[in-house]
Amino acid sequence: SASIDIAVIAGDGIGPEVTAEAVKVLKKVTAAEGVELTLTDYALGAEHWLATGQTLPEETIQALRGHDAILFGAVGAAPGDTRIPSGLIEREMLLKLRFSLDHYVNLRPSFLYDGVASPLAAPGTIDFVVVREGTEGPYVGNGGVLRKGTMHEVATEVSVNTAFGVERLVRDGFRRASERPRKKLTYVHKHNVLVYAGHLWKRTVEAVANDFPEVSVDYLHVDAAMIFLVTDPARFDVIVTDNLFGDIITDLAAAVTGGIGLAASGNINMDRTAPSMFEPVHGSAPDIAGQQKADPTAAILSAALLLNHVGYPGAATKVEEAVAADIATRNPAAARTTSAIGDAIAAVL
Amino acid sequence: SASIDIAVIAGDGIGPEVTAEAVKVLKKVTAAEGVELTLTDYALGAEHWLATGQTLPEETIQALRGHDAILFGAVGAAPGDTRIPSGLIEREMLLKLRFSLDHYVNLRPSFLYDGVASPLAAPGTIDFVVVREGTEGPYVGNGGVLRKGTMHEVATEVSVNTAFGVERLVRDGFRRASERPRKKLTYVHKHNVLVYAGHLWKRTVEAVANDFPEVSVDYLHVDAAMIFLVTDPARFDVIVTDNLFGDIITDLAAAVTGGIGLAASGNINMDRTAPSMFEPVHGSAPDIAGQQKADPTAAILSAALLLNHVGYPGAATKVEEAVAADIATRNPAAARTTSAIGDAIAAVL
Ligand SMILES: CC(C)[C@H](C(=O)O)[C@@H](O)C(=O)O
Ligand SMILES: CC(C)[C@H](C(=O)O)[C@@H](O)C(=O)O
Repeated sequence: SASIDIAVIAGDGIGPEVTAEAVKVLKKVTAAEGVELTLTDYALGAEHWLATGQTLPEETIQALRGHDAILFGAVGAAPGDTRIPSGLIEREMLLKLRFSLDHYVNLRPSFLYDGVASPLAAPGTIDFVVVREGTEGPYVGNGGVLRKGTMHEVATEVSVNTAFGVERLVRDGFRRASERPRKKLTYVHKHNVLVYAGHLWKRTVEAVANDFPEVSVDYLHVDAAMIFLVTDPARFDVIVTDNLFGDIITDLAAAVTGGIGLAASGNINMDRTAPSMFEPVHGSAPDIAGQQKADPTAAILSAALLLNHVGYPGAATKVEEAVAADIATRNPAAARTTSAIGDAIAAVL
Repeated sequence: SASIDIAVIAGDGIGPEVTAEAVKVLKKVTAAEGVELTLTDYALGAEHWLATGQTLPEETIQALRGHDAILFGAVGAAPGDTRIPSGLIEREMLLKLRFSLDHYVNLRPSFLYDGVASPLAAPGTIDFVVVREGTEGPYVGNGGVLRKGTMHEVATEVSVNTAFGVERLVRDGFRRASERPRKKLTYVHKHNVLVYAGHLWKRTVEAVANDFPEVSVDYLHVDAAMIFLVTDPARFDVIVTDNLFGDIITDLAAAVTGGIGLAASGNINMDRTAPSMFEPVHGSAPDIAGQQKADPTAAILSAALLLNHVGYPGAATKVEEAVAADIATRNPAAARTTSAIGDAIAAVL
């Protein structure tokens, strides 16, 4: 019988609040569809590290592997919190999950909903998806430091890019583009400067393009992509790019579509050798944590991506439609609490 | 007696057109100020490479060293031109100049002029300057490729960052911030992921900050900086960042202030061991080359940065004021030719 077994990592800051609303919506939609839902909470994040000194033990990774998918809230200490080494939780927990579970497709849809104010004067129709590489590039943690703290210090960062890693990501991007009405793929890099990685990307895109003759292909240097994201975001359909450029592009894309309160993401293992993980693009926002001020929409839309990935595209669409219906009625002058927004979306279902 | 000796590299595409207007304005303002102006043209760029096979011979670099400054137009082949290896001119000529002449401060002011339409609905007052590192980081050309063209290919890019290089750049940023009314410095990196380079930057900023207690310091991850550049660009005063992040940020900054037709830059050797080079942020735009459609404003504002650097801040201010006066009267419905814009600005002087 139909069932979904989800690991829930609510995390820090606003993570628990927004995740609670995503869970509320998941319960409602699975009940309506007659799908049995099993939820298991995992305590991880900055607070957990302060309490236990653990970021992500190997046995936790093994336990997470047993679930169908992971629903992730947000992690990270408050910026001023000196008890937690800067970036530790992000690297040793969030990135470690992405790398350990081989989340090579970091999927980030950008959609400007009716009723949402964009900071752009004339945004046009924004409906694209960024397929960001999630397991290599400048994020691999390679590099080092020589003569640290002296005037002769040298610090390096090594971006590692493999044909294997780039090909599977690029192929995923083409497949997604081929399934969308506009069938357009834009790959973004900086191959005029980063020649080694850039040319691997270039050759890979050119090779994979042969298998998708129906997809039109466009290239932009990352700096030029910045310009188009604010002057003509409607030109984008599927953007395929590396880990760091994808990080940069998706925050800008979230901003032009009305803010990271609405931006969902999936860290997806398309080979299904491990569970995929769905998380809002936003962080833990410690400044507003526990105040019911956070918008749970990004978390709820991430739950929709989860439903789609684990085989319930119908339920995913229902959640997305409920979100769109709720957004269309939002009144910027009348702020609702985090749980009120979750209630309203659940009520539509 | 007062004199300026300038090397002019007009380059490719729209480079010659926009540079001609910058030269027109330089002639006018130096004549008015009683400064003797010497101009020497250097043929370099994609067209020159096609004709001669040369990118930037050592003797040309030596000759360029003899001038007070370099006025640079734009270089680069048309995107579809398969005769020229992609990125060759950019790397072997433009970047080679920046590195050979030790242009460690890549200075890029962002200013939203009265009368210019921003793509942002509510841009506010935009008046900041990006101090981009110009001689290291991911731009050093280190890296390589293993098993090229096979399914086992590995391509690396190495970002090299030195205490020497970061410190002199950060110090320049603090000095500029201390001379501006708001005295605010924002450094941008991604130190939660790029720990080796990121922490060198972080420690350097913290150390140099001690010498500038009057400057307030703020840090943003590059992804968060993207969001603020479109939601609250007025918050920025001086942005200090690495070579690649600076490339990305300055194109976005140019876009939000009305386009790269207005964005000037200086590649500055603050130690004056070699001439500095002033260039519009835009590229060679081969699609509109030779049609008198390009806006020469960025080239003219780059000439103003040049005047300031070589010791004529009064003349620089006059050019900037003439540009602002011209921009305030622009009618988007009545496009002028490249030379008409140059004439109008020169006429104000
Ligand atoms: C928290 C950080 C490590 C992460 C990233 O850089 O990928 C975040 O910015 C994101 O985009 O999910
Ligand atoms: C042409 C290219 C090498 C250059 C850069 O990346 O620095 C350009 O984008 C710029 O910003 O001046």
